[in-house]
Amino acid sequence: MRRSPMILALTFAALALGCAVDPLPTWADAEAKLQIVGFVERVTTRGSREFVAPAERIAVFDNDGTLWSEQPMYVQLAFALDRVKALAPAHPEWKDEEPFRSVLAGDLGSLAKQGEGALVKLITATHAGMTSEEFEHLVREWLAAARHPRSDRPYTAMVYQPMRELIAYLEAHEFRVFLVSGGGLEFLRPWVEEVYGIPRERVIGSTLRAQYESRDGQPAIVRLPEIEFIDDKAGKPLGIERHIGRRPIAAFGNSDGDFEMLEWTTSGPGARLGVLVHHDDGTREVAYDRTSPFGKLARGLDEATQRGWLVVSMKSDWKTIFPAPR
Amino acid sequence: MRRSPMILALTFAALALGCAVDPLPTWADAEAKLQIVGFVERVTTRGSREFVAPAERIAVFDNDGTLWSEQPMYVQLAFALDRVKALAPAHPEWKDEEPFRSVLAGDLGSLAKQGEGALVKLITATHAGMTSEEFEHLVREWLAAARHPRSDRPYTAMVYQPMRELIAYLEAHEFRVFLVSGGGLEFLRPWVEEVYGIPRERVIGSTLRAQYESRDGQPAIVRLPEIEFIDDKAGKPLGIERHIGRRPIAAFGNSDGDFEMLEWTTSGPGARLGVLVHHDDGTREVAYDRTSPFGKLARGLDEATQRGWLVVSMKSDWKTIFPAPR
Repeated sequence: MRRSPMILALTFAALALGCAVDPLPTWADAEAKLQIVGFVERVTTRGSREFVAPAERIAVFDNDGTLWSEQPMYVQLAFALDRVKALAPAHPEWKDEEPFRSVLAGDLGSLAKQGEGALVKLITATHAGMTSEEFEHLVREWLAAARHPRSDRPYTAMVYQPMRELIAYLEAHEFRVFLVSGGGLEFLRPWVEEVYGIPRERVIGSTLRAQYESRDGQPAIVRLPEIEFIDDKAGKPLGIERHIGRRPIAAFGNSDGDFEMLEWTTSGPGARLGVLVHHDDGTREVAYDRTSPFGKLARGLDEATQRGWLVVSMKSDWKTIFPAPR
Repeated sequence: MRRSPMILALTFAALALGCAVDPLPTWADAEAKLQIVGFVERVTTRGSREFVAPAERIAVFDNDGTLWSEQPMYVQLAFALDRVKALAPAHPEWKDEEPFRSVLAGDLGSLAKQGEGALVKLITATHAGMTSEEFEHLVREWLAAARHPRSDRPYTAMVYQPMRELIAYLEAHEFRVFLVSGGGLEFLRPWVEEVYGIPRERVIGSTLRAQYESRDGQPAIVRLPEIEFIDDKAGKPLGIERHIGRRPIAAFGNSDGDFEMLEWTTSGPGARLGVLVHHDDGTREVAYDRTSPFGKLARGLDEATQRGWLVVSMKSDWKTIFPAPR
């Protein structure tokens, strides 16, 4: 629904009167912000026809491309490529074996052509054979040292400030926010609490099989080189059902990998909010959607209007994109 | 550690002075209560050498035999047997097919002899082929009508009042309590929030595979007749790691199926509490341990002392076992 500038102005004036401090300062006073704030007001106002009890206020967020940058490649893929280089001396056979050969030759074009099977091979070869604690330590060390190739900032600084404000705004209204990512569960847990304020037990992600065993007389959980669950596309509603057991009332994504999560969320009864972040800002970030190898968004754009999903323009709805350097 | 009656008396007098209301009124003023209260005081008192930040105060509870009765059989098994009888008219082949034949003939002895494979066959035949919502509806209806064979009370009244007090006591001290059961995740979710005060997103249990599909044009999550995960024995630490991602500091169980959960919990650094509920009250409940087909407890009893686990005697540590009828 479109509103006249006058209505928008009056609405935000009213909101401004209502609360001294704007909870979403980096969101432009425009339609997207209005719809998000309006939804939250409706479901959290006692007596409202669409009031939702706090226990049922579940909001789910995708991570790559929704909360942080997924360009020029998924951050976890950059981590895996660095792991291949670090492990290569112990694997002389890799220089003749795909996809390792391409990675070590820096031929990402060839890697991309090898498809998902190659990625699975990279992940299982670099993410397994250690305990959960050991893997988390590797992730922390890598994130502390690695830099985003374009901004030269830590990857954890390449997060979207407006979305961080949105998470805090929802939590302040007694929502429970869960991260629902195609990325690895244990790649996310070490840092999402500090960066997004989402506790590690509220992270749903892809997993490797694991084994409980004794190491040096101490019990340990060891990661096996085998995919257990891929939390993407139709896997997202399944991961949500298994972990939360409640259908979310709000879902935030940016790619067709989030389509089923938004579909599952918004097809429930009562007030629902489905949001797609559209990467349309080639100046401040990267403009991409239908043809991107990472974060492809096509069906979502085609069906957003008929499904009543809100498409957020990073270019016009966000005053800033990344947090200011500390 | 054993304490003299005088020390105990003085300690509980001090506790009584400290708090006007005893948070564990159905626990006898004895060693078990003293150790539990002492642990909670140590990890929640700021400045204490063993203080644990609220975010890390994770407590895990087994369900069958720890929070509610598992005799004369697991409640979920009683549900499955009733489902077999309800579905039998549509499955004439069952009268000649094990384990259904034994179930329909009421021959539980024969059923027991058929082992875990038979149980899996019963579960997959009676718990799948429907949506999660449909299954939860079946569970609610059954629990509302079914009665425990000995007490003639609803199964949800066959819960242990001292353990319900303990859960509330821990929550009051900013613990987050999770249910970690070998039982079915979606058999537990419909009622644990009302009965134990544990929200459904804090339940970890065994699962069937599921599928996201469209039913009558609406998205649905459908349960498939295939075991996905068995949350028992070594599966419990794995379920805890995947769901919570923090090692608990307190674990409560009653059988050798909980051994690894207690081992994983109590082998971490800092203050830890491992508790086994011992079913030694043949008058008020059922006395069983080493030879019981349900809730067998042998290794736990053998190793509790050396591992520093607390063994709670239902007979002497609990003033009452079940809640008073409403």
